[in-house]
Amino acid sequence: MATYDWISFTTDYGTRDGFDAVCRGVIASISPRTRVLDVTHQIPPQDVRRGAMVLAQTVPWLPRAVHLAVVDPGVGSDRRGITVETPRGLLVGPDNGLLLPAAEALGGVTAAYELGDRRHHLAEASATFHGRDVFAPVAARLCRGLDPAALGPPVDPADLVRLDEPTVTVTPGRLAAEVLTVDAFGNVQLAAAAADLAAAGLAPGTAVTVRTGAGDHPAVVGRTFADVAPGELLVHPDSAGRVALAVNGGSAAAALGTRDRDTVRVEDAP
Amino acid sequence: MATYDWISFTTDYGTRDGFDAVCRGVIASISPRTRVLDVTHQIPPQDVRRGAMVLAQTVPWLPRAVHLAVVDPGVGSDRRGITVETPRGLLVGPDNGLLLPAAEALGGVTAAYELGDRRHHLAEASATFHGRDVFAPVAARLCRGLDPAALGPPVDPADLVRLDEPTVTVTPGRLAAEVLTVDAFGNVQLAAAAADLAAAGLAPGTAVTVRTGAGDHPAVVGRTFADVAPGELLVHPDSAGRVALAVNGGSAAAALGTRDRDTVRVEDAP
Amino acid sequence: MATYDWISFTTDYGTRDGFDAVCRGVIASISPRTRVLDVTHQIPPQDVRRGAMVLAQTVPWLPRAVHLAVVDPGVGSDRRGITVETPRGLLVGPDNGLLLPAAEALGGVTAAYELGDRRHHLAEASATFHGRDVFAPVAARLCRGLDPAALGPPVDPADLVRLDEPTVTVTPGRLAAEVLTVDAFGNVQLAAAAADLAAAGLAPGTAVTVRTGAGDHPAVVGRTFADVAPGELLVHPDSAGRVALAVNGGSAAAALGTRDRDTVRVEDAP
Repeated sequence: MATYDWISFTTDYGTRDGFDAVCRGVIASISPRTRVLDVTHQIPPQDVRRGAMVLAQTVPWLPRAVHLAVVDPGVGSDRRGITVETPRGLLVGPDNGLLLPAAEALGGVTAAYELGDRRHHLAEASATFHGRDVFAPVAARLCRGLDPAALGPPVDPADLVRLDEPTVTVTPGRLAAEVLTVDAFGNVQLAAAAADLAAAGLAPGTAVTVRTGAGDHPAVVGRTFADVAPGELLVHPDSAGRVALAVNGGSAAAALGTRDRDTVRVEDAP
Repeated sequence: MATYDWISFTTDYGTRDGFDAVCRGVIASISPRTRVLDVTHQIPPQDVRRGAMVLAQTVPWLPRAVHLAVVDPGVGSDRRGITVETPRGLLVGPDNGLLLPAAEALGGVTAAYELGDRRHHLAEASATFHGRDVFAPVAARLCRGLDPAALGPPVDPADLVRLDEPTVTVTPGRLAAEVLTVDAFGNVQLAAAAADLAAAGLAPGTAVTVRTGAGDHPAVVGRTFADVAPGELLVHPDSAGRVALAVNGGSAAAALGTRDRDTVRVEDAP
Repeated sequence: MATYDWISFTTDYGTRDGFDAVCRGVIASISPRTRVLDVTHQIPPQDVRRGAMVLAQTVPWLPRAVHLAVVDPGVGSDRRGITVETPRGLLVGPDNGLLLPAAEALGGVTAAYELGDRRHHLAEASATFHGRDVFAPVAARLCRGLDPAALGPPVDPADLVRLDEPTVTVTPGRLAAEVLTVDAFGNVQLAAAAADLAAAGLAPGTAVTVRTGAGDHPAVVGRTFADVAPGELLVHPDSAGRVALAVNGGSAAAALGTRDRDTVRVEDAP
């Protein structure tokens, strides 16, 4: 019987309304010894894609856990609730693509179950707050050793809802990729992997042009912020293994005017 | 001697200044084993009414606890600090109406005491930070088993400061109620109870008109967001048992232009 | 062998990206029993001075801990990572001035070490996320009893990077001081110590003029917000022992138009 000491917790609930506290209260009531590690509750409302990204980039660094994630625009509709097994932990949340990138980061889906058995939910589940009524109770029971297979019927992993893969194109001297996220510092993370920089022949020290819909910007391929002068633009492999754009001491997002899902091109400067 | 494992913690301190951390530090120093469950520190500054609402809607889901809440525009004046006993836990904070709705949600006030005995506060209490100097130390000592009656003189529950009850009017085919809160998704919660919808004869599926100061909006009474098309307006009993307005995939507050304390009417559409 | 139960944690990472969760995950993996007390993750990006201030005003109230703080514009450059010993706990972070005011608040620096020995960092440290790869692992190992001297070569405390001291001038009937911080309520904290008010002869009850670059404002020296009428300006010793400006029931920062590092004068009203 596998038990878990930790629940990681990711939502779009914000931190002003007490919704995340309600869920932590439900967890504490069912499994008092569980420790909750909040990833963030500030995923933009109903932004499943960003939730999936933040979760996938965070879970590799967390202790073995039940990863509870709720960004759930379809709550109360016929979208499924699921738990997903991986070699390095469980995930619990809606079947809308939110959990799969994190599952991949934890070694891939080995099994999945629909949360069909209402005996493991709160007694009177609401139609609009499954974080409290379904997902948190299930996560807490998994921590105490409940077998995921007891939660409901198995789901073929191939049938789970998946998000579109972001577009990345690599050609000699050129890289084009979607913006995955912009962080609090204004660093712009692209969908391209760090290895794509080398594949495009863009070695450290290369002068490049960063092309966005809004214009062209000179930049240098480097390793860290201090590799360019203050205020200048850097293209570098970031700490999550992605290609990112940064301004030394400033905000690349502000400098470039880019946002999530924009396409950015990085090209050998002529 | 009752002891408590948990303190829940609600303030308007924000999360940028370390004030909540200072209070958690004081708690940890006095009662190292206590676990703190943060409800929110983002009550709008000095908004006692919203603090009371968030606290009252959260505490029913929390484990048995000392509920510490500080939204305290009168700090340093002659407003009293109090602890309130209920059948399902204690509350600690200023006597300005903040604690009573939560006390009702926990079964009602069975006793109340003024925090008059300074031996249970920090040695040199400031005039402006009673969260740190009075309320947190008292909450921590209650966790360790201090009898609430030791904190100071009893207060007649009828003498505690109460907030005005929000206005709700129910007539056949009509409901009028104050806005209680707007959450991070833009869902607009009214003071009306879910049962008021039925009392007004507004059954699920009924087409209604939502009237605000800013205009009239068509809506449907339903159960969850997916009961209306994306972008359309839903009137539903929310997960806290109140009547709420929501837009499927959007923000009802933005669509309606409503704010806290506005009055909203829901009427049978002609 | 000194061990620590607590890590306090202060950064400019924000709470939207999971960066703080990643660090807490690293801590949990290395030292599962450590409890993390978050001070704030909302220091404005790369604002070392504000980070130093918040940390210094918070640590006196925390339990004995390893204080982990990361506001680190120079990450990946040749700035040093350090641990600093004080009579009342350890600090870990970049050598850029962030830690020293807090070290003073904990009794002064008794020793300091550069984080030179990579065996105590994560195996493959990135160039841009030393919170995760260097500082969090080091803090977790210090909790488990690692001797700070094992982390790397000693650093002469006199060689540690220090921030400029903020300017304070006290003359009879006058006080001039830099703004240290503005809190969530709009209270404006000056660099002047509470004792400077007395030294300037500005006793409680004194009518004063508060002069900023933007204009002159009448105020009264007092003890707490209720010492002036609602909407009026108060000069008072705040709960951190500094001179502060507050508006009863309002925001002094909004009323005065002041910001961090502005100079404010408080003068006997003629």
